Order: sequence, then C-alpha cells, then structure tokens
Amino acid sequence: MRIGLDMMGGDFAPLEAVKGIQLYLAEQPSPAELYLIGDQPQVEQLLAAHSIPLTNIKLVHAEEVIGMHEHPTKALKEKQKSSIAIGFHLLASGKTDAFISAGNTGAMLVGALFSIKALEGVLRPTISTIIPKENGGTGILLDVGINADCKPEQLNQFAVMGSVYAQLILGIENPRVALINVGEEEGKGNLLAQATYPLLKQNKHINFTGNVEGRDIFLDKADVMVCEGFTGNIILKLAESLYEIAQRKKIQHEYFDRFNFEIYGGTPVLGVAKPVIIGHGISHATAFNNMIGVAQKMIDTNLLPKMKEELES
Amino acid sequence: MRIGLDMMGGDFAPLEAVKGIQLYLAEQPSPAELYLIGDQPQVEQLLAAHSIPLTNIKLVHAEEVIGMHEHPTKALKEKQKSSIAIGFHLLASGKTDAFISAGNTGAMLVGALFSIKALEGVLRPTISTIIPKENGGTGILLDVGINADCKPEQLNQFAVMGSVYAQLILGIENPRVALINVGEEEGKGNLLAQATYPLLKQNKHINFTGNVEGRDIFLDKADVMVCEGFTGNIILKLAESLYEIAQRKKIQHEYFDRFNFEIYGGTPVLGVAKPVIIGHGISHATAFNNMIGVAQKMIDTNLLPKMKEELES
Repeated sequence: MRIGLDMMGGDFAPLEAVKGIQLYLAEQPSPAELYLIGDQPQVEQLLAAHSIPLTNIKLVHAEEVIGMHEHPTKALKEKQKSSIAIGFHLLASGKTDAFISAGNTGAMLVGALFSIKALEGVLRPTISTIIPKENGGTGILLDVGINADCKPEQLNQFAVMGSVYAQLILGIENPRVALINVGEEEGKGNLLAQATYPLLKQNKHINFTGNVEGRDIFLDKADVMVCEGFTGNIILKLAESLYEIAQRKKIQHEYFDRFNFEIYGGTPVLGVAKPVIIGHGISHATAFNNMIGVAQKMIDTNLLPKMKEELES
Repeated sequence: MRIGLDMMGGDFAPLEAVKGIQLYLAEQPSPAELYLIGDQPQVEQLLAAHSIPLTNIKLVHAEEVIGMHEHPTKALKEKQKSSIAIGFHLLASGKTDAFISAGNTGAMLVGALFSIKALEGVLRPTISTIIPKENGGTGILLDVGINADCKPEQLNQFAVMGSVYAQLILGIENPRVALINVGEEEGKGNLLAQATYPLLKQNKHINFTGNVEGRDIFLDKADVMVCEGFTGNIILKLAESLYEIAQRKKIQHEYFDRFNFEIYGGTPVLGVAKPVIIGHGISHATAFNNMIGVAQKMIDTNLLPKMKEELES
C-alpha cells in the first residue's frame, strides 16, 4: 500500500506533516509506504532532524507549491510541478493508492473531480464532516459544500456513501441514516427534502430512520445525516466556529474540545475512484497522522469497491 | 394601545403569563391596555392571587383551548371559541392592536397568514430569530421556517423587513445586511444565493455588506442575515440545542446563557399588517413580559407602516 502525502500543503507544512508522519510510524504496526511529495532537500532535512528512518518512505521532489489562495483550476493547470499536481499524477497513474493534502482545498477538489474518475454510477462526488454527538459518539454529515444545489437522486447516493463510510471507517454497525429537515414527519420540508424522503425510504441499501431537525444534529438521533451542500456547509462552518468561540472565551469542556475538527484529520472526497483526503489548512501533526490513518483504513477495508457495490446493486 | 394576550398558550400557561403581566406592569411607565384571552375564572383567580390590579386589564373569556399538538388549520376552524381564534378575531376586527400567544405555533402562523392580511406588497410574511453575537451584540436571522423554498425577490424583501426591525426594535443604526452563503465572494453559492446577491446589492433600502458564511453567524459581521427558511430553521434549532446541551453538561458561561431564546421573548411574524408575536411553548414569565414589550414597541415605533414604506418606495 502506497500513500501519497503533500508535504507542502497547509499553514504549518512541511514541519507538522513530518511530525505527523513520526506519530503515524510510531503507532502503526504495519505502516503503508509513504510517498512524500514536496521540496526534497527541505523534507530530507526535517526527516533527519526528527530521526525518521527512510524505511517506509519514498521522496518525490516537487519544485512548485500551489498557494492557499491561488485560483484552483488555474494553479493546477499552470503549476504542473507543484506537489498537488504531482500527487494527483501519481495517484491517477497508479503509482500510489491514495493522496492526502492539507493544501489549497479548491485545487484538491478540482484534482479529485477531474484527474481521478468518479466511481462508476456516482452522479456527483461529495465531502462530509464528522459531527461530535452529545453522548460521545460521532456522526457523519454530508454534503458539506461541493454540491450547493442537489437533486433527490444525489442525496440518495450521499446516503449510501455515508452509510458505507460510517460502517467501515467509523465502525458503526447498521448506521441510522436520516434526512436533515425542518420537521419530523414525512412530507415536511422544502421541495428537495419532500422529494428525497421517499427515495431514502425505499432504498434497501441503507437503514433510513426518517427526518432529523437542526436540534437533533448533535444528539444521538442518527449516524449519517444527509443534506445538500449549501445547508451542510453552513452547519459545518457554524460548528467549527463554536470551537473557536469556546477557545476565545476560555470555555473549557471536553464536549467542545471535540469540535476541534483537527482531531478527525481531513475529509475524504467520497464517490471518486481512489482515496483522496483533504486536510484543513491549519492541520498540525495529529491531523496529518489521522489523515494517513484514514487513507490506510479506506484501502484496508476496501471502502471504495464496497461503496461501488452498494451503489450499483 | 390595546394588546391581546392568549392566556392559555404555552406549557406553563396561564400561571407564567400572569407572572409575565406582573413584570410588565411593574416595569412599564405607560403600559398598554391588555386584553387577556382565556378561561376567565382561572385568569381572574390568578390575577387576584398575584395582586394584579385590573386597571389596564380587560378580560375576554375563551371557553376552548387549541392544544400544542392539534392540527393547526383544523383546530382553528373547529375551535372558534378558542383563545387563539378569539385573539385573531379581536385583532382582525380592530378591537386590539397586537396579538401574542405562546400556544400552538402552527395555529398562530395560520391565523397570522390567513386572518390578518399581508402588508401591501409583501410576497410572503416571514419569521426571524435573534442571534447572540460573540461580542455581546445581537443580530437577526430570517427566514427561520415558514418559507422553506424561496425566490430571490422574497429574500430581498426579508432583507428590508429585517433591516427595519433591526433599526426600530433592536435599535441598530444603519444595520449591516448580509446574505448567508457558502463563500464570501459574489457569484458563490447555490442558484438562489447567486440570484439574490445582485438584488440585495442594488437595493437602496438596505445597507448590504455582502455574503456571510456559517462561521460568521455568531460573529459581528452583519446585523441582519438573510436566507431561505430551510437553512434558517436548521440554524435556529441547532442554536437552540446548543443552549440545551450546555445546560445538560453544566457548561456555565454568560455567552451560552444568551442562547436561552426565552430572554428575547417570541418571534414576530413580519410582513403581516398587524403585530402578531409567537412565543415558544416553554415560555416563562420573562418571555411573556418581553413579548408584551416587543408588541408595544412595534406599535410605538410605527414598525409596520415604516416597513410598508420601505418595501413600496
């Protein structure tokens, strides 16, 4: 198993990426082979400084970097020697089995959607977020931003993809799938929610449990929560801001600590044919460690073939 | 000025309504005349028990009550002698100038939308919520649930109504109006947001400051935040649940105390021709007091004529 990692992506790269690799190698009994893509002299020096042996490591030099605020499509096209462009090239050509970056989110999405094929039958890939539940559990919410306008069929596919992810990666057996809505009963909601409900209800690949409202999102009502990317993105960013507000106001509580999205690593792009994980720009060592771990788990558990199977049959 | 109050609405009625009246009369130098609609013997007894003089009070007997879980349209039609039906009848016939209830929300909405005319020119009335800002200020978010699907023109009207409300009722001078969206720049968002942005930008009746994202909702980025009722309802209920979670987890902080929506009273239905305020089912004395106060302020400041003027010109 070969996992590509963009060493130049994120506000604290490459140092925190190196520290993340150190954590990963120390924890994993059978670590993947890591393809570290970035400024080779700088990466080599940091690896040496952290006494990281090169046993499971392959260095891939990238002489360019896509900045956090560059225009995604333009940058990817013009900077063919950037760590993100090379990372996708390695993944698309089968030289690696997964690709991770905490760099320019837009460029990662463009790369995932255009240089990696969609899983067969997938209308639109999606990105998700972990939702920390009040009772200590974790749920998953999707889509959180790449599909601002959705059709019912897309939400139905998000439900399947989220359900498989919850099972295999989060370890939730028979995950409860719910539709985010403004009321509990069938028939409630906007036109999209009204049209999506019957599809979810008839879908034999998921354990659909009905609607959940805004007040239920942090409660243990459902494991997989589905909505279009507009509402999902608002929820995600609002939840992220709660952590920041709690930090600034020095509100110390383990529950709010779980709104520190760094502890979950990045978000995988679901529905593309190979594992791609996008990290938050502020990723530190823990986030990098977790992202490599999730990528490994996605490969180990055959997540994508399993997803394809559930979507097709 | 005559304000109608449903004494039977809410989980703790009529006792908490009576206590709310007591607070109101003690605080207000020139209180409105209160029309107390409900079970007269019960209300009289409670007023006496709380030594409330009948100087500013008119008792209106209602022999029926619409329960919290009754079907709104059906209940309003069949229970003509209920406190809510009588309350709307008094308001529609000009015998009162405002109507307040913490009872069946659906029945209140149906009553407001069908027995009271919409303000001239208003496409769809709306309901809003107060948003407690991190810096201690308050913002207003609308729509929060009666318009799950919206057209750009409706959002544009919500912006005007919210802006007038923020000025006259919240006392915010030249309120900053923003569009809730998934990105900062013009052109971002779903089709609705993309189509709404230019309308808001051209609208001379508001101080439009651009898009705000989920992370900005609790920050001091804008005073009036506009979205369709689906997303707005999710945000409102999510915010309400935060207060409940903080309470259950015994997280004590003045910021989270401000998520106790009772302190703001109810939510007015904006865009109907007369002041109608809907309270939360769990309303206690403070909420009732605040609702009467808001109704009085809506009349005192000529909110509705002012709104009509801004929408028309």
